[in-house]
Amino acid sequence: MDLTARVNGSRFWGTVERSAEIGATSDGGLDRQTLTPADKQMRDLFVGWCADAGLEISTDPLGSIFARRAGRDNNLPPVVMGSHLDSQENGGRYDGILGVLAALEVIRTLNDIGHITRRPLEIVNWTNEEGCRFSPPMLASGCFADAYSIDWVYQRQDQAGTTFKQALDALDIAGTAPLGRKFDCYFELHIEQGSRLDDTGVKVGVVTHGYHSNRVVVQFFGEAGHTGTAPMGTRRSAMVAAAHLAVKLDQIGLRFSDTGGMATAGQILALPNRAGVITPWSQVVCDVRHDDMGTEQEMLRELEQAIEEAAALGRCQFKIVDNWKWGGELFDGGLVDLIKTSCEKLDFPYLTLPSLAAHDAYFVASTCPAAMIFTPCRAGVTHNPNEFTTCEDSLPGVNVLLHSAVRRADR
Amino acid sequence: MDLTARVNGSRFWGTVERSAEIGATSDGGLDRQTLTPADKQMRDLFVGWCADAGLEISTDPLGSIFARRAGRDNNLPPVVMGSHLDSQENGGRYDGILGVLAALEVIRTLNDIGHITRRPLEIVNWTNEEGCRFSPPMLASGCFADAYSIDWVYQRQDQAGTTFKQALDALDIAGTAPLGRKFDCYFELHIEQGSRLDDTGVKVGVVTHGYHSNRVVVQFFGEAGHTGTAPMGTRRSAMVAAAHLAVKLDQIGLRFSDTGGMATAGQILALPNRAGVITPWSQVVCDVRHDDMGTEQEMLRELEQAIEEAAALGRCQFKIVDNWKWGGELFDGGLVDLIKTSCEKLDFPYLTLPSLAAHDAYFVASTCPAAMIFTPCRAGVTHNPNEFTTCEDSLPGVNVLLHSAVRRADR
Repeated sequence: MDLTARVNGSRFWGTVERSAEIGATSDGGLDRQTLTPADKQMRDLFVGWCADAGLEISTDPLGSIFARRAGRDNNLPPVVMGSHLDSQENGGRYDGILGVLAALEVIRTLNDIGHITRRPLEIVNWTNEEGCRFSPPMLASGCFADAYSIDWVYQRQDQAGTTFKQALDALDIAGTAPLGRKFDCYFELHIEQGSRLDDTGVKVGVVTHGYHSNRVVVQFFGEAGHTGTAPMGTRRSAMVAAAHLAVKLDQIGLRFSDTGGMATAGQILALPNRAGVITPWSQVVCDVRHDDMGTEQEMLRELEQAIEEAAALGRCQFKIVDNWKWGGELFDGGLVDLIKTSCEKLDFPYLTLPSLAAHDAYFVASTCPAAMIFTPCRAGVTHNPNEFTTCEDSLPGVNVLLHSAVRRADR
Repeated sequence: MDLTARVNGSRFWGTVERSAEIGATSDGGLDRQTLTPADKQMRDLFVGWCADAGLEISTDPLGSIFARRAGRDNNLPPVVMGSHLDSQENGGRYDGILGVLAALEVIRTLNDIGHITRRPLEIVNWTNEEGCRFSPPMLASGCFADAYSIDWVYQRQDQAGTTFKQALDALDIAGTAPLGRKFDCYFELHIEQGSRLDDTGVKVGVVTHGYHSNRVVVQFFGEAGHTGTAPMGTRRSAMVAAAHLAVKLDQIGLRFSDTGGMATAGQILALPNRAGVITPWSQVVCDVRHDDMGTEQEMLRELEQAIEEAAALGRCQFKIVDNWKWGGELFDGGLVDLIKTSCEKLDFPYLTLPSLAAHDAYFVASTCPAAMIFTPCRAGVTHNPNEFTTCEDSLPGVNVLLHSAVRRADR
């Protein structure tokens, strides 16, 4: 393909702006949690666009959507591009969405210029990347990569007690596309969700690897009582234990912040969580991340000690009920070099950097060569209605995706 | 009335056991939150019992139920006995309930012996004493005592966004009994919710006053972000602020525990409270209590400082959105003496003690002479499905109520 080929910026941005209307919140953000009616509306819109582009649609048993453009040799595994169209409860307009719509724009551009690649191309929209409705995140790509079983995913419940399977069936979107089938490779374009690109003015990030990321879910078991009558010395409060753990997590993060470590209590659940009642049960989701595996392990040892101390301070029993790990996977060296080469040939400066957030590409990387392209977002603000980027800032990354994917697919 | 008169213990306990079936939870407790179908079922049962006892029923605009037994001089204000039939979300079978059903048993006993008092007698069941569904607690007695306006109470919302008025209308139980009308006096029998009676084996507590109790509702305002990408030093986390405040509250309580002080974060709300998101908004309900007003003020000054420190540690703004006070009111000396005299005449040992928990009697005490009778509960366990007492332990208090109310009503 001619090196001067470029995607159509205004058409691309039109899809991004249309997407921003579906599940829009009054503060400019998105609430388009997975397997909700808003998610379905966006899926239908996306599938319509794909059909108009001549693509063949299929869905897998978890509702992930694949849109295929035939190549010259359709016995070869496809080159796949994508990300996710779901959002956080009060998330931004670009997280994940940009990667799916960039892939669509790549296909539309190839249609415009009449370029048929050797290998087939596919776009993917992974179900439930965010994990805010069904925990953990990246359920569908995790299942695709055989990290989770279908039955286990189907039984995951949201806070209202609805299972993943019930939510999927309510939208009637489960299909039969086989899980774990062979991809030639996988490209995921995504906003950086950090500020290195925005700080330096560079428009393209070539992602080399992911932060070591952990999500440890701890439950504390105390005893209910009356906040006005139970003497302090007799109390067993799961709220006190949870609060101590949240404070200690923040302190662990601060101690390791010089080298980019992070630790967060993102979620605290308490029952009954009523003003007059000493809390008998609580749950804290502990999020611990570091770029270096040795330091990550050190942070996890501190977390372990913090959990024990917090339980003792609340005079509670505790139980670790889940312990998820992501990241650390190195993206494929050949694919990373291919993206760098595209940047150089297109004369786009780039930064090489790790991914701090987890992405579907982490799981897919265990099944085929995978790599990611980052585009800027203002001040790194994300998972926030103020998440912001522009068409101008995004286009270099989309064009790098176009040239990288086509070079790989024509190989 | 003859000093040998006694209530019918097995009939009384039969009503307590019947009540324990309505809203029963699998762990032996009750979930009979105010203005729910279970509350309505209990109200209907209670009203039926009152009608069978020949009482005249009315309800006020907040749904509080009054059941009146005519006296010999019905121009005199009534002697009122009662408490509440609602429970915490996972509460016990006796808290409040015992006081309403004891009053019913007093009336039934008077019917048995054919004693008509000079003044009319009334039983009251106050709506929403617990405050677990609609905050703050004691909404209806507070409104009766003109501490809250009807409109303000009607607009209180539960966590699902349902207003008090909507919940009331759904059950169709609002009436026109005038708020703030004159009572001759008010007696409230209640389980102690502390362990002094259980520890000493004394069966009757004569309550002299209430603990100074405060409920301060604080909101923290931070900024949403991604738990995996926002550097620790840039975060403004309302979860971190809330956790620090909960820890500091517990520490304040522990510092003042030698003199019986208590401090609790009973409830922490966070939005969106999702694992991958730095929390932009949280709310903590701070509960601070002490028997001595000077020490209470000292604790409140420490709370004020704790709120500021917690906000600074989370780099959040904060706002105190509610600040309720109860207790400290002295119950009526004449009425307290009357209860003591009844104990002495009936030859029941008693303790004089303060109330640590807040009760409807606190508000009613601002409108007429009021006093409380405590009965034992095992180990002081309350607001807990394991709340426990027996008919045998309760009957001395119920008989003291009988003789005190009749002596006052015959005055």
